[in-house]
Amino acid sequence: MSDNPRLQPPGDSGLLGWLRHYRLAWLSGDLTAGLVVSVMIIPQSMAYAMLAGLPVQIGLYASLLPLLAYALFGSSMSLSVGPVAVTGLMTATLLAPLASIGSGAYLQMAIWLALLSGVMLFAVGLLRLGFLANFLSHPVISGFISGAAILIAISQLPHLLGVPALPSGPQQLLDSWTLANSLVLGIGLVSLAWLMYARSMLARHLRGLGLPPVAATLLARLAPIVLVIAALLVTVSGDLAARGVPVVGFLPAGLPAFFWATPEFSDIRALLLPAALISLVTFVESVAIAQSLARRKRQSIDADRELLALGAANLGAGLTGGFAVAGGFSRSVVNIEAGANTPLAGVIAMTIIGLILLTIAPLFAHLPLVILAVVILVAVTPLIDVASLRRAWRYDRAEGLTLFSTAAGVLLLGIEGGIALGICLSIAAQLWRGSRPHIAVVGRVPGTQDFRNTKRHLVEIEPHLLALRIDENIFFANTKAIEHALYRALRDYPDTREVLLILSAVNHIDSTGLDMLSELTEGLAERDIHLHLAEVKGPVMDHLGETDWINEQVGEVFPSTHIAFNTLGNQKRAVAEPEQA
Amino acid sequence: MSDNPRLQPPGDSGLLGWLRHYRLAWLSGDLTAGLVVSVMIIPQSMAYAMLAGLPVQIGLYASLLPLLAYALFGSSMSLSVGPVAVTGLMTATLLAPLASIGSGAYLQMAIWLALLSGVMLFAVGLLRLGFLANFLSHPVISGFISGAAILIAISQLPHLLGVPALPSGPQQLLDSWTLANSLVLGIGLVSLAWLMYARSMLARHLRGLGLPPVAATLLARLAPIVLVIAALLVTVSGDLAARGVPVVGFLPAGLPAFFWATPEFSDIRALLLPAALISLVTFVESVAIAQSLARRKRQSIDADRELLALGAANLGAGLTGGFAVAGGFSRSVVNIEAGANTPLAGVIAMTIIGLILLTIAPLFAHLPLVILAVVILVAVTPLIDVASLRRAWRYDRAEGLTLFSTAAGVLLLGIEGGIALGICLSIAAQLWRGSRPHIAVVGRVPGTQDFRNTKRHLVEIEPHLLALRIDENIFFANTKAIEHALYRALRDYPDTREVLLILSAVNHIDSTGLDMLSELTEGLAERDIHLHLAEVKGPVMDHLGETDWINEQVGEVFPSTHIAFNTLGNQKRAVAEPEQA
Repeated sequence: MSDNPRLQPPGDSGLLGWLRHYRLAWLSGDLTAGLVVSVMIIPQSMAYAMLAGLPVQIGLYASLLPLLAYALFGSSMSLSVGPVAVTGLMTATLLAPLASIGSGAYLQMAIWLALLSGVMLFAVGLLRLGFLANFLSHPVISGFISGAAILIAISQLPHLLGVPALPSGPQQLLDSWTLANSLVLGIGLVSLAWLMYARSMLARHLRGLGLPPVAATLLARLAPIVLVIAALLVTVSGDLAARGVPVVGFLPAGLPAFFWATPEFSDIRALLLPAALISLVTFVESVAIAQSLARRKRQSIDADRELLALGAANLGAGLTGGFAVAGGFSRSVVNIEAGANTPLAGVIAMTIIGLILLTIAPLFAHLPLVILAVVILVAVTPLIDVASLRRAWRYDRAEGLTLFSTAAGVLLLGIEGGIALGICLSIAAQLWRGSRPHIAVVGRVPGTQDFRNTKRHLVEIEPHLLALRIDENIFFANTKAIEHALYRALRDYPDTREVLLILSAVNHIDSTGLDMLSELTEGLAERDIHLHLAEVKGPVMDHLGETDWINEQVGEVFPSTHIAFNTLGNQKRAVAEPEQA
Repeated sequence: MSDNPRLQPPGDSGLLGWLRHYRLAWLSGDLTAGLVVSVMIIPQSMAYAMLAGLPVQIGLYASLLPLLAYALFGSSMSLSVGPVAVTGLMTATLLAPLASIGSGAYLQMAIWLALLSGVMLFAVGLLRLGFLANFLSHPVISGFISGAAILIAISQLPHLLGVPALPSGPQQLLDSWTLANSLVLGIGLVSLAWLMYARSMLARHLRGLGLPPVAATLLARLAPIVLVIAALLVTVSGDLAARGVPVVGFLPAGLPAFFWATPEFSDIRALLLPAALISLVTFVESVAIAQSLARRKRQSIDADRELLALGAANLGAGLTGGFAVAGGFSRSVVNIEAGANTPLAGVIAMTIIGLILLTIAPLFAHLPLVILAVVILVAVTPLIDVASLRRAWRYDRAEGLTLFSTAAGVLLLGIEGGIALGICLSIAAQLWRGSRPHIAVVGRVPGTQDFRNTKRHLVEIEPHLLALRIDENIFFANTKAIEHALYRALRDYPDTREVLLILSAVNHIDSTGLDMLSELTEGLAERDIHLHLAEVKGPVMDHLGETDWINEQVGEVFPSTHIAFNTLGNQKRAVAEPEQA
């Protein structure tokens, strides 16, 4: 946990750089982290498997090989991969139309989904196409996560109430209420209180008891496993399963076997979109987490290698009968807090989980499902991010709306619909902004070479020269607006003989824009007004250089507005004075 | 046809401005234009009705009330509305899945389509939503028109060969070939030769015979009606219909009755998308034509009034049993060439067509269909615009590709598919460009206050100051690229202690961009590098002013790069010198 850079493992020194340069000083941190993380993620993995509609051991299976695969390819020294809430939810909702939850076909589909998503992530990494994820804006990601978290929380309510599905109303719930329901709800509420207390105050109280801060924080993180052990004791001693409290029921001992079944082509086709969506979310979320962790330790990560690593992790999950995995935020934070220096911590965690599977795993069969539901609820509620919504809305209404619509879309239209709506809205907002360019008539700040908006500053203008600064790329969505703005300015300055377009903020002109400019120049020429340009950027000029517009229609192209003002201003004054005489 | 502005009717002086200010001097031009246009559009209207899969008289019906409706609302003094090729094609292809061509239900659907499109155009005009059409880029419009023209030309080949449908191969065509086919093909080829001669050389030859240029041009424009009359004489005298040459067959005398039938809700729903597409194309095309005509006469048009006028014209068409209408290019050009001064020319044309319907219309029953097919072919071939494709491709590969894909999309995926593909591609091209921003390290041009790209110009830099100019709006698609470019520049300039971002070309920063900048500033601060800004535009600063980033993380915000260089350069040199001493 040293912050001395010399003692830091290299994040971006090639595959397995951490292993080639491994130092003994890192081992104790990696060991502690492996132990703490493995104990912490056992209830989480089982809970997320339940969320995905799968037997709980599938969650444990998905916590083995993926950790090794990530260690081989990953560039983050701290990211911990495994089952996470959002991919659990996505597995459940995306597979629901394809197979019925609980069936063998469903489990099969979940495994293929992980494999296909692994292939996609790996291929995208090899082809270095990771930049495609850049087209997801933060409001879309944030809205998606919040919407998904709400969906997840709602999905756990039946477990909390001890009923098979959400009741249609309070009356129906009351009519069918039994002692078992009361027991489940009681266990759930007590567990919820414990986990919430553990999250907010336990560490402080442990420090108050004299524990060192780091140990107190880590111990508080282990509250879920304490809950699991307590729940097992209560359930077995009180024989609660016999009293109608739903429990896990069965959990085989032993490691998963390597697994392969050849899918039908029609299954692959049905899984293509789900796998693409899971891959996108896995990549975006995992890289965001890895980046924020790398910043803490002043390391850096490589997005293309993360794609390979996440792909390999999902292939590893699928090949050992697990479901889709991703980098998890809370487990990675615990990993880093517990002192993880390299992905060896993950390999150690894998080993411990493997040992647990070989030995005491069948005991978890007595675990009430409500415990897992509570673990999920406590994990996902912080993901409902109202602060981001408030901040986005304050910064820009369109972005707030995008975030809100994405979240609402996930809730009302489903995951694909929500993401698609969000992407469309963020692109539409971008186009909408570009379609309403800021256009300023500028003049010279007296005594300087600076030119500023006549509406914001006290500036000098030349009577026959209209200088317009266009503050936007010129493209199809704003050509009409720019044309109108220019004609409006001509009405305000009726003596104009020369128009100067200042293109300092124009980074691109598309062909629709070029057509508009050409027609505009023609229209001005008919009124005997000449069009000139100033401050055309190099790349724009490279593009325009070969067009008829710039070679035949435009007057002069000035390197700076200053030179343009001197040239066009004086020139016209020389012509104008004799007329006044 | 005077170019004296005092004699020009006002284009944008409110509804019916042209009538309130009507001058007797305009009447002769309007009369001539009305006569010429009416004679010219009779074959066209019938041909486009055939193209739309409708009885030919429907084309004539659609050439009555729409002209009056346009005269009441329109702002163009020259646009001539009526059946056009593209809306004819759209009517045929969009209705094909809804009813079988030739049936009463099909005719009914075509009429409702015109009505619904009229309602939409009128509503969009009232709501002033015409700007939405700005999101169609020129490559999309051009690609759509070219693709539609090819589709239209292909659709007329059976008429040219005298067969009911396109043969599956040459063998099938030869096997079923009869004398009638030869007659049809012969008439078609002779007619085609005549119309092509008329278009390219007839006017010149008429001038050679001593006719004044204007009269020669106008007479040459009447070649189609000469063809129609000649064809009628030949068909009747040679009794060609009896020899198997397909003719129009039946054409009722008299004006259309006012028409109303209440549609089923399911029909309306099925027609919503077709009507929206026809409205979009009608508006975009008609306004483009009206604008280019207005420029010729130094008039202007009002897009919102054009929407009302086109809406009214389509309502007029539908209410008198006609099909969808739009502003036509060739008829409008003839209108203007023949001297039209005001929409009165259209009202006169309407009157003449009405008189023809009342008297000699039934004679057209003897017209061979191949004549109408040839009229269509000659009208649409100039719309296949290869020059635009070449120009767009040369200007920008992405735009050339968009144009080509839209045309190919129209041919292979149909009209909706082609337009949707084109819109997606032009938006994607725009995002793609924005995602790869030009970012320059700049230095001072010696002895000036100008700053230029170090890679393009010989400039001075300060060793501890890295000045980066970002030539693009900062938004979700390019945040990663900007972050990478900055870190790359830091590797090239390892002595950097101060980073100056020059935002002169940044017109907007979205919330994803803001998050990136905030993380970047944090990352730089960890390396003890400070971030400053220069030339932040007013609207961007208005936005950023309330953020934590600018208030807490950013160093200074300089009004100009010049001041920033003087301040940051000197400051650092003062600190740097003692170290070196």
